[in-house]
Amino acid sequence: MAILCRPAVAVPEHVITVEETLELAERVHAGHPQLPLVLRLISNTGVRKRHLIRPIGKTLEHPGFEVRNRIFEEQAKQRVPEVAAQALANAGLQAGDIDLLVFVSCTGFTMPSMTSWLINSMGFRPDTRQLPIAQLGCAAGGAAINRAHDFCTAYPDLNALIIACEFCSLCYQPTDHDVGSLLSNGLFGDAVAAAVVRGAGGSGVLLERNAASLIPGTCSWISYEVKATGFHFRLDKRVPTTMGPLAPALRALVDTHGWDVAALDFYIVHAGGPRILDDLSRFLGVPAEAFRFSRATLTECGNIASAVVLDALSRMFDEGSLPDRARGLLAGFGPGISAEMAVGSWLPEADIPRPRAEPVAARVAGGR
Amino acid sequence: MAILCRPAVAVPEHVITVEETLELAERVHAGHPQLPLVLRLISNTGVRKRHLIRPIGKTLEHPGFEVRNRIFEEQAKQRVPEVAAQALANAGLQAGDIDLLVFVSCTGFTMPSMTSWLINSMGFRPDTRQLPIAQLGCAAGGAAINRAHDFCTAYPDLNALIIACEFCSLCYQPTDHDVGSLLSNGLFGDAVAAAVVRGAGGSGVLLERNAASLIPGTCSWISYEVKATGFHFRLDKRVPTTMGPLAPALRALVDTHGWDVAALDFYIVHAGGPRILDDLSRFLGVPAEAFRFSRATLTECGNIASAVVLDALSRMFDEGSLPDRARGLLAGFGPGISAEMAVGSWLPEADIPRPRAEPVAARVAGGR
Repeated sequence: MAILCRPAVAVPEHVITVEETLELAERVHAGHPQLPLVLRLISNTGVRKRHLIRPIGKTLEHPGFEVRNRIFEEQAKQRVPEVAAQALANAGLQAGDIDLLVFVSCTGFTMPSMTSWLINSMGFRPDTRQLPIAQLGCAAGGAAINRAHDFCTAYPDLNALIIACEFCSLCYQPTDHDVGSLLSNGLFGDAVAAAVVRGAGGSGVLLERNAASLIPGTCSWISYEVKATGFHFRLDKRVPTTMGPLAPALRALVDTHGWDVAALDFYIVHAGGPRILDDLSRFLGVPAEAFRFSRATLTECGNIASAVVLDALSRMFDEGSLPDRARGLLAGFGPGISAEMAVGSWLPEADIPRPRAEPVAARVAGGR
Repeated sequence: MAILCRPAVAVPEHVITVEETLELAERVHAGHPQLPLVLRLISNTGVRKRHLIRPIGKTLEHPGFEVRNRIFEEQAKQRVPEVAAQALANAGLQAGDIDLLVFVSCTGFTMPSMTSWLINSMGFRPDTRQLPIAQLGCAAGGAAINRAHDFCTAYPDLNALIIACEFCSLCYQPTDHDVGSLLSNGLFGDAVAAAVVRGAGGSGVLLERNAASLIPGTCSWISYEVKATGFHFRLDKRVPTTMGPLAPALRALVDTHGWDVAALDFYIVHAGGPRILDDLSRFLGVPAEAFRFSRATLTECGNIASAVVLDALSRMFDEGSLPDRARGLLAGFGPGISAEMAVGSWLPEADIPRPRAEPVAARVAGGR
């Protein structure tokens, strides 16, 4: 058994609305020949606001890769423990109950990984397995769930904690003026999310099967150029079309499991942008409403990279409308172009208590 | 079942001997107040030669992080496929038989990961799971084996290919003059190694149990400073003493398995430096000869980071002296300070053929 328990999510306290984003883009890129297109693309994302770890003035500065990466580490150390503690509390577990710690982030790079720091500072056991993943981008949220699922399948009594820490604002590159970069500047947001996958006990999504898929020949569509100034995000304009080739992979996974992809009870997918959600509705034959949790994440937080699936899942837990054994699909999408997908069913609150840890202050401050 | 099959290893064609290393250090760091100490430390490593992806003149240049990282990618694309193909052939498998692709490297950073490129270029299935690990340093070789073991435990019919690609020479930082850096400049080498973990069938090391261990409070002992000039490796002088706290973790794993750590038939451990091997002999009560494979890797290649365990294992396969069901220990050590350990037993050549792919040219050229 592998039960994906209620996630914890914290969005930072600094907020930028779409109106402020558009005004900023107009001001910073006045005279850019494709400014009208960029403004239209940003408006069309449906993002209403995003949360940032620092005020917008600071965000627009580039103090160098070294300083930025240090900010990542400082901010992660400030913000991750509270979210991790809440995820543990949501699962009715303590740090000492965790056997695998998966930490995914594509917006900062440290060695040792944050997993080592967390073990030292949060009371995880010294024999906790560490799995840091930095190179799967937005798909890493799905990959984290799937590798935790695999782990609990191998060791049915053990537990995994997955943490997605994405400070996309630290990848802002003021010298990148292509349309993909300017759109990204108006799309991505910051967040920390975490969830426990319990091998035994717990309530939430019973993970039943997972799979991955890569679209051949699309390696360059989403990528980092690694430079002295840090990671430069490259977004090809064909990326929004990728649900065409990925929808069949989602369908195949659900078919293999003996379910009907058009008739599931929940869909928790990476909200990379609005077209991804629109296209999935169309290709899978599912009403747009089915993607309301992912849509809400996009609207309220922007694209928060690997944290999207956990945030969308958290909203589904909050809604609390699923019947026992409701069937669903989870999927992260990212560079490769690749998908990490899972099917599972809803196991409602069983015998475990769900104590609340201290409230996640940043999230409250963020207005959610 | 999870069988770790015969690894494939390639070391690059450019060779630097310890004599050349010492001569170079004397020339480049003439007048350095601690030069005699540095020369003694390098001599004491026992490294006889190392292999580099480029001639030493090129290695000593620093063309910037961007160019270096591009070199990593180009060289990985040149050198990895042949080694991966040989590892597949050693296991009697083809690319299409692989379900999980683990790629570990701490000496270059790409997104998408090399796993995506390999799927596109080597005929792996588009549904191959990708697990790139960049932040576990030298311990990643052990982690790759252990995560592949977990995967095959969860899915007993599936197979994993693990690849360790370490071009440590691309992390040479000409402006770092502390003793740890100068020692590292004389210690680390380049190599690519790969091995299949088969869920069913095959011969090699039957992986039976694995574990991880972190020494509390040692995060800063092995680390990267991430700068505009790339990764700056920081090595604390206390690192060679870490077998004191890690040996009990190795012993505990073997004890839990019901075996005697002092009486195993083989020991394949990360050869970070000579003291690690000497201390393990002492703390585990094992003759120095037991570490001959790790020692040979250190002597012939230097510390090749996450590739050490696979290279040492390859030497054990070459020696071919183990009886059926011989018992052994594998361990990677790295930043954290952490260990990824496994116990397993020797399953000799069974029913599978071991076809040779095309010979690994670079290895032949490297004189092995």
